[in-house]
Amino acid sequence: MTDQPAPLSFGFLVFPDIQQLDLTGPYEVVSVLDAPKTVHLVWHDLAPVRSTTGIVFTPTTTFADCPPLDVVCVPGGVGVNPLLGDAAVLAFLRRQAATARYVTSVCTGSLVLGAAGLLKGVKATSHWSARDLLAGFGAVPMPGRVVRDGRFVTAGGVTAGIDFGLAIIAELCGTEAAQACQLQLEYAPAPPFDAGTPETAPAGLVAKLRARGEAVRREREAFVAGWTDA
Amino acid sequence: MTDQPAPLSFGFLVFPDIQQLDLTGPYEVVSVLDAPKTVHLVWHDLAPVRSTTGIVFTPTTTFADCPPLDVVCVPGGVGVNPLLGDAAVLAFLRRQAATARYVTSVCTGSLVLGAAGLLKGVKATSHWSARDLLAGFGAVPMPGRVVRDGRFVTAGGVTAGIDFGLAIIAELCGTEAAQACQLQLEYAPAPPFDAGTPETAPAGLVAKLRARGEAVRREREAFVAGWTDA
Repeated sequence: MTDQPAPLSFGFLVFPDIQQLDLTGPYEVVSVLDAPKTVHLVWHDLAPVRSTTGIVFTPTTTFADCPPLDVVCVPGGVGVNPLLGDAAVLAFLRRQAATARYVTSVCTGSLVLGAAGLLKGVKATSHWSARDLLAGFGAVPMPGRVVRDGRFVTAGGVTAGIDFGLAIIAELCGTEAAQACQLQLEYAPAPPFDAGTPETAPAGLVAKLRARGEAVRREREAFVAGWTDA
Repeated sequence: MTDQPAPLSFGFLVFPDIQQLDLTGPYEVVSVLDAPKTVHLVWHDLAPVRSTTGIVFTPTTTFADCPPLDVVCVPGGVGVNPLLGDAAVLAFLRRQAATARYVTSVCTGSLVLGAAGLLKGVKATSHWSARDLLAGFGAVPMPGRVVRDGRFVTAGGVTAGIDFGLAIIAELCGTEAAQACQLQLEYAPAPPFDAGTPETAPAGLVAKLRARGEAVRREREAFVAGWTDA
């Protein structure tokens, strides 16, 4: 009888108005890992949820049924706003965080970890348009594509989830396993422009996107202003 | 009455055993474009299809019902193999290619364009593990993240679809529109390793992945060997 390591378990929160690439990027990285694993999509119930850009995701388990996870991950999107005050979401994250090896997020998913009271004194990041809001939850906002502070690993906006996926696989399974995922996904990015951050994008464009996101941002500001750790 | 440009129409093929990030990467880029557009997921019928790594996609239209597209795109994956000999798939692509502004693929989706006879004399690329096979369809295999030859734009493996999405938006709507998508998706990639291509990955890892993909590769070789332009 050989010792088989227990399969790794990953759980991504899914929800209405999720930003689909926040989920599908890291989902794909951990899913091409050549090792026993399960990858859950977790929500209140099993009814399909629609992402902001249209693709529909079907949860594979519920908050009540989800087993203890090695890695719990909260993607972001416009749809995080209602999650900030959703007691069942926050209780699920607190329960998983008590035993998970890594408590993680992509993009504005970190706001939900913050609302759950999990980021107090923790260095963390988010989408560039929301990063500063983390301070309202007692976190220490950091620039960076992937920010690690102990068991907490938070990624920047959307596509940072791919870098995050590789980083978490390296943590769990070693460098070679992560490199295998990278090679499989041919991840040798070559953006045709250098406009991926507010620091490098044309200033007019940053202003335009801030204006487009203003209503969502104000909701978040109002939530943070009223937040007290439960 | 002002002249409104017609909404842009994008159509991505979906199919069983699609590599989900081949689709979801460029889907997200074109979907965050701030302009009127429709993004279709096209298949034989509207029944949900399961990607190799588990996420299920529901087609939004069928080969019969899909309107003429500005951009038709074939993602890749293990599931392209049955498509190479699927008469309805090939007929759909030939019909769309006759009028589309851009005929495109991500990853091994280019093999399907090849099987449809659309890449004769055309410079094209694919996932690193399959790129050479394009020659069997009369194409000119090229290295490169995004390869453009006239109306034909083909991307390398999986994550190259994000670079492709930005390139196609730049073609259709200009640099600023593409930069806005890039900033929204915070696409300033920072891979933790340099193992995204066979040229940069450890040799042992390349051999391992080639071995893992051998059965799929042999099926493709056999198809190419027997292929004649219909």
